[in-house]
Amino acid sequence: MIEAASARAQDKFTYGMVGGGPGAFIGAVHRASLNLGGKAQLVCGCFSRNAGKNRESGEALSLDPGRVYENYIEMAQAEAERPDRPDFIVVATPNDSHYDICRAFLDRGFSVMCEKPMTIYVEHAYLLQKAAARHNCVLGVSYVYTGHIMAKMARRLIREGAIGEIRMVMAEYPQQWLIDAVEGENKQAAWRTDPAQSGQCNCVGDIGSHIESLVHYMTGLKIEKLCANLDIFGEGRTLDTNASILLKYEGGASGVYWCSQVAAGYENALRVRIFGTEGTVEFEQEKSNFLTYIPKGKPAQVLVRGGDYLPADLRALDRLPAGHPEGYHEALANIYDEFLRAVAAKRAGEEICEADFDFPGAEMGIDGVWFIEKCAESTKSDTKWIKF
Amino acid sequence: MIEAASARAQDKFTYGMVGGGPGAFIGAVHRASLNLGGKAQLVCGCFSRNAGKNRESGEALSLDPGRVYENYIEMAQAEAERPDRPDFIVVATPNDSHYDICRAFLDRGFSVMCEKPMTIYVEHAYLLQKAAARHNCVLGVSYVYTGHIMAKMARRLIREGAIGEIRMVMAEYPQQWLIDAVEGENKQAAWRTDPAQSGQCNCVGDIGSHIESLVHYMTGLKIEKLCANLDIFGEGRTLDTNASILLKYEGGASGVYWCSQVAAGYENALRVRIFGTEGTVEFEQEKSNFLTYIPKGKPAQVLVRGGDYLPADLRALDRLPAGHPEGYHEALANIYDEFLRAVAAKRAGEEICEADFDFPGAEMGIDGVWFIEKCAESTKSDTKWIKF
Amino acid sequence: MIEAASARAQDKFTYGMVGGGPGAFIGAVHRASLNLGGKAQLVCGCFSRNAGKNRESGEALSLDPGRVYENYIEMAQAEAERPDRPDFIVVATPNDSHYDICRAFLDRGFSVMCEKPMTIYVEHAYLLQKAAARHNCVLGVSYVYTGHIMAKMARRLIREGAIGEIRMVMAEYPQQWLIDAVEGENKQAAWRTDPAQSGQCNCVGDIGSHIESLVHYMTGLKIEKLCANLDIFGEGRTLDTNASILLKYEGGASGVYWCSQVAAGYENALRVRIFGTEGTVEFEQEKSNFLTYIPKGKPAQVLVRGGDYLPADLRALDRLPAGHPEGYHEALANIYDEFLRAVAAKRAGEEICEADFDFPGAEMGIDGVWFIEKCAESTKSDTKWIKF
Amino acid sequence: MIEAASARAQDKFTYGMVGGGPGAFIGAVHRASLNLGGKAQLVCGCFSRNAGKNRESGEALSLDPGRVYENYIEMAQAEAERPDRPDFIVVATPNDSHYDICRAFLDRGFSVMCEKPMTIYVEHAYLLQKAAARHNCVLGVSYVYTGHIMAKMARRLIREGAIGEIRMVMAEYPQQWLIDAVEGENKQAAWRTDPAQSGQCNCVGDIGSHIESLVHYMTGLKIEKLCANLDIFGEGRTLDTNASILLKYEGGASGVYWCSQVAAGYENALRVRIFGTEGTVEFEQEKSNFLTYIPKGKPAQVLVRGGDYLPADLRALDRLPAGHPEGYHEALANIYDEFLRAVAAKRAGEEICEADFDFPGAEMGIDGVWFIEKCAESTKSDTKWIKF
Repeated sequence: MIEAASARAQDKFTYGMVGGGPGAFIGAVHRASLNLGGKAQLVCGCFSRNAGKNRESGEALSLDPGRVYENYIEMAQAEAERPDRPDFIVVATPNDSHYDICRAFLDRGFSVMCEKPMTIYVEHAYLLQKAAARHNCVLGVSYVYTGHIMAKMARRLIREGAIGEIRMVMAEYPQQWLIDAVEGENKQAAWRTDPAQSGQCNCVGDIGSHIESLVHYMTGLKIEKLCANLDIFGEGRTLDTNASILLKYEGGASGVYWCSQVAAGYENALRVRIFGTEGTVEFEQEKSNFLTYIPKGKPAQVLVRGGDYLPADLRALDRLPAGHPEGYHEALANIYDEFLRAVAAKRAGEEICEADFDFPGAEMGIDGVWFIEKCAESTKSDTKWIKF
Repeated sequence: MIEAASARAQDKFTYGMVGGGPGAFIGAVHRASLNLGGKAQLVCGCFSRNAGKNRESGEALSLDPGRVYENYIEMAQAEAERPDRPDFIVVATPNDSHYDICRAFLDRGFSVMCEKPMTIYVEHAYLLQKAAARHNCVLGVSYVYTGHIMAKMARRLIREGAIGEIRMVMAEYPQQWLIDAVEGENKQAAWRTDPAQSGQCNCVGDIGSHIESLVHYMTGLKIEKLCANLDIFGEGRTLDTNASILLKYEGGASGVYWCSQVAAGYENALRVRIFGTEGTVEFEQEKSNFLTYIPKGKPAQVLVRGGDYLPADLRALDRLPAGHPEGYHEALANIYDEFLRAVAAKRAGEEICEADFDFPGAEMGIDGVWFIEKCAESTKSDTKWIKF
Repeated sequence: MIEAASARAQDKFTYGMVGGGPGAFIGAVHRASLNLGGKAQLVCGCFSRNAGKNRESGEALSLDPGRVYENYIEMAQAEAERPDRPDFIVVATPNDSHYDICRAFLDRGFSVMCEKPMTIYVEHAYLLQKAAARHNCVLGVSYVYTGHIMAKMARRLIREGAIGEIRMVMAEYPQQWLIDAVEGENKQAAWRTDPAQSGQCNCVGDIGSHIESLVHYMTGLKIEKLCANLDIFGEGRTLDTNASILLKYEGGASGVYWCSQVAAGYENALRVRIFGTEGTVEFEQEKSNFLTYIPKGKPAQVLVRGGDYLPADLRALDRLPAGHPEGYHEALANIYDEFLRAVAAKRAGEEICEADFDFPGAEMGIDGVWFIEKCAESTKSDTKWIKF
Repeated sequence: MIEAASARAQDKFTYGMVGGGPGAFIGAVHRASLNLGGKAQLVCGCFSRNAGKNRESGEALSLDPGRVYENYIEMAQAEAERPDRPDFIVVATPNDSHYDICRAFLDRGFSVMCEKPMTIYVEHAYLLQKAAARHNCVLGVSYVYTGHIMAKMARRLIREGAIGEIRMVMAEYPQQWLIDAVEGENKQAAWRTDPAQSGQCNCVGDIGSHIESLVHYMTGLKIEKLCANLDIFGEGRTLDTNASILLKYEGGASGVYWCSQVAAGYENALRVRIFGTEGTVEFEQEKSNFLTYIPKGKPAQVLVRGGDYLPADLRALDRLPAGHPEGYHEALANIYDEFLRAVAAKRAGEEICEADFDFPGAEMGIDGVWFIEKCAESTKSDTKWIKF
């Protein structure tokens, strides 16, 4: 393993962050995952719109106070002019600000890793894709679950035909954190349930889009049409906290996606089951070191991350031997490893092709915004199927 | 336990069976479950339309050859005139024949336990209900999973408010036995996939209706409208082998039902999860000695059949102590215990009220046929929601 | 399945029972399991030393009052002289009475199914074996877990070399029912913790001997020596309620057996894991429809009872299709099926060989008593290993 | 969470490493876990006795070549004289070298985190403890599993009396990696099975000592005596690859420890179950985000890391919300957080007391070596119990 780690470790990067101040969740996770990888150093940031909290974060992170900015525009302008400008920017703010912030950095030639969903409006998503292309930047969208080694193994099995032709996708993502109205005391709950910051959907936008991206990552299936039932459970709310969606994919397969933030007992239980003519593949993110594969007519097999029987290129991603659990940080670190490989290639002046890198990029980001938009459209419609 | 068993054992019954010949599945299960209970003796039957097989079954079952009939009409007529006529008839034939057979026996004053779905057409289901009432007979429909003690415990928890107001139902029933076209060699597969014998739906009729009945049994929820996507997977087939259904219940809860006969690795995996404002209840029939209950904000609890903490009336149903697994036979035997209690009451000339007995009856049978019909209607419609 | 069931059903038997009165557990289970099989009818018995309870049981079981006896001697004498004497006797009494009761019936030419442990003293166990041989009777000992189809599959895999040479056996059987001193209110607890009725060991005798028999059944391993640590947990007790035992088998394999009646949260959790040079096999009685098999260097496989990939002769034992759980009753019914096959052969005057029948007999019964005796010896000794 | 992380992040440390070169496992894990915490920077090292590999590692880790040393003596001497000498040293070499290396650094005033087992001989373990005390250094032993939040929760429940008085400990640690003789190709296998480098025991020393330390950490129980059966499975080997051990603790509780490196299908399956008079607690390291707690007479509860119902001080250790799995890296990072808190206190000139810090230190290290020694003694003895 050390060999692989050495190879990875040789390139060094610097980065800035927008968002991720006190009380936020995902920004700190990005920093920890980048730390785990050991290749990228945080050098600047704008962590909170609250000046005190922003400063406090900068200090806690041992940043040069001169590189802790009051707003992202100032940060983009100032950092763009430094000779030691960072290699990339992590955007970990509420959904409604993604477009403007990403745009500000992409247009100044910074590569960007943006939290999902990429934007609120599909048009904006396309504009970010174009901006990245125009300025020769790498644009990633942190659909973290695509970084799990066993999710990659699921993709491998499916792509290699182990389950034949796909007939049915059954995917769910239940959580419990919004079962009661915690918006008053929980900062994340407050913005996620606020249409102004969250967009047209809350539950579908936050976790539904994780289902959509992970299913697409594993299967390559394209949605032909969908039929969504969005529920606004919880008094006083105006956005969905539960959603059930029927799907038809191109080629004839069917699907069901269910996501919920009001499912008592479920913390973060993303689970994807893919049924084909020759077998089944199942992945649960809370048991991400395992993968169930059932060849038709045979006993179910439980594959373990690190297992000798896994392909060498996937085993090369192991940071720990089998039985020594990897988790969420490692999944995000895996995504960054590929993202940084692309950033390094750009930095070296190479022409790169997205398909050569295994991280969620602009295409997946755009698909995610389409999915949210179509779910919102369906829930207002009396027509059964909403076409893509 | 012996006390309860003694009490149960004191009444003795005789019965006849239509269907359940060589190669069938469910008829033999009814006989074994009745044997397990030890209260009812098979005395006559018409087991197969094939005279040889019919005779062979009668012999294997040690019946008086004079009470093994070539067809059910003859059986109904002959048995009706005997002084020792059986107390009830089990109907375990393909769906399309249920109505005529049940009718023949009900009209002659026999109580009947009919396999589900009760009939193919809703009108017929109502007619059976009326026939039973007119002739003062007990009519049961063998939705076997309602007989599990832990399904009854789920119902109890829900009815007593343990999970608050229901918001979401997530229920599934995947199987794998029709993943390939086995209709040529498998008798049951042949009739189930044949519209003439199976009715408008195959998968929804066979196992979808089990979901519907079990959810209703546990929750009491009434379906307001549904939206169904039925898939005909498997070449040359004309009936569904996979179905995904969105539901809205009266009162605002939502639901998803998924049933499939093409899900590799799943044998008979009926699973129902009920999410409320105060908690969650989950039941899996393949682990029917357990029940998961999650009170909001607390750790998940795994309740075990036979556990000291279960209510006394449910513990009285135990045939075995905790940790000594009961299964499918016991579930059906539990249904028969209640059905026979009703039959005994009728025999004793008592007025009975269905609500005093805990077995699936005509109401549940009618609901099941409605459900199948509405799914068939939805799948042909462009309108999102089909109202009940 | 019906074919197999028919074949089984053709022979009919009658039996008597000693023990199994009100408040007992296992006697009623024997009756239910025999009912499930549908081949044997209870015709006489002596259910309790309490005359009232004895009569009550006989009535509840619809027996001829003339064949309900006040004691087993009277029963043995009277039934031996009837022309319609029963084919076999079930002995379901406390351990200390097994020898005398079995002897009384064997000596009068009745076949016997005796609860385990067969006797308290090894000498008595040998005497019963000889009595059975002398009188040409079948003698079974109801080690019920050997009746599970998936336990038979474990045996098959091991015997066919699927896990290579066995190195280690890890077996446990925790229960919780004696965690508190319930002897006052629980009849079974009272006799099991009483040396006069239970013998030298309680926990080892009751459930430890199930481990020993099941491991031997699956593996064929013979114990060379053992080292036991018996604990008497629970105030005022004089017999073990927890035991941990190291073992060395002939050929060099090692083992650990742990049994306990004071393990909160465990109902009846017999679990056997067999580790060999080429793989592992694992069986849990509370999940008796499954078997885990792990070929060395490959993913774990979960085999399901009823699975298409199981050998035909084991599939022929299915009473229900895969996914329709069988449980404890079915395991005991399977043992009776084989026992009755042997009884029928004797009845037909055939010479039979124990090895041709798959039910636990005198050999296994004797081994069980040896095991208990050696555990008692070890726990009093300062020598590490007690040889067999 | 960010608050806690900020607090933690304010102190910064530097460290050196001995061992952890190419092909090693645990050294890289220490570096990644320290990276994850984000507080300590590697500044020097001696990674391999092979000069080329040593240099290569230093480069891969971006170290100043002048601080990459050919042997640990040279490193200890040179670094001791630098004004920017590192705060602590990580020792991640084979067991036989721990004593000399730790001694070299402790004697020069460096705090040390040493891999387990601390030494091969008990005398050496005491000498290291004394050296640390004499030079006012912090000495940690990286029993990583004590770093899991849910292992800490198990300890909390037990210490607070949730399971009453402990009666039985059932602990196991099966692995499969030495099922075949891989010593030729696997560097770690080579030294672990070599008595010269590994010490008196292989399996007991490597993973048995993890059981011992984790049980002690959770329960506080002291071993009174033990009886060990060590097996040398695998041709040509001279050290144990499987061990089963009976234990009696002070106060009367019993225990069984089983560890194995030849258990097909098990990667790293450390599992500890503690049974008391009032309940049971169970922890599995491969499912380290969960803990099972069973109060006597109640349903089993599954506690989840991050759950709202956990105590605030344990929740403060969360790096990720519930349902976002933490794993092995986080457990080691938690140990380092406490170790660094002690290092910082020493650096600040404070008197510290080991009991104020929650990391495995010299006491636990000494206990571990005693345990290994007593197991080796027992396996050679004919006496049942070996006293401590």
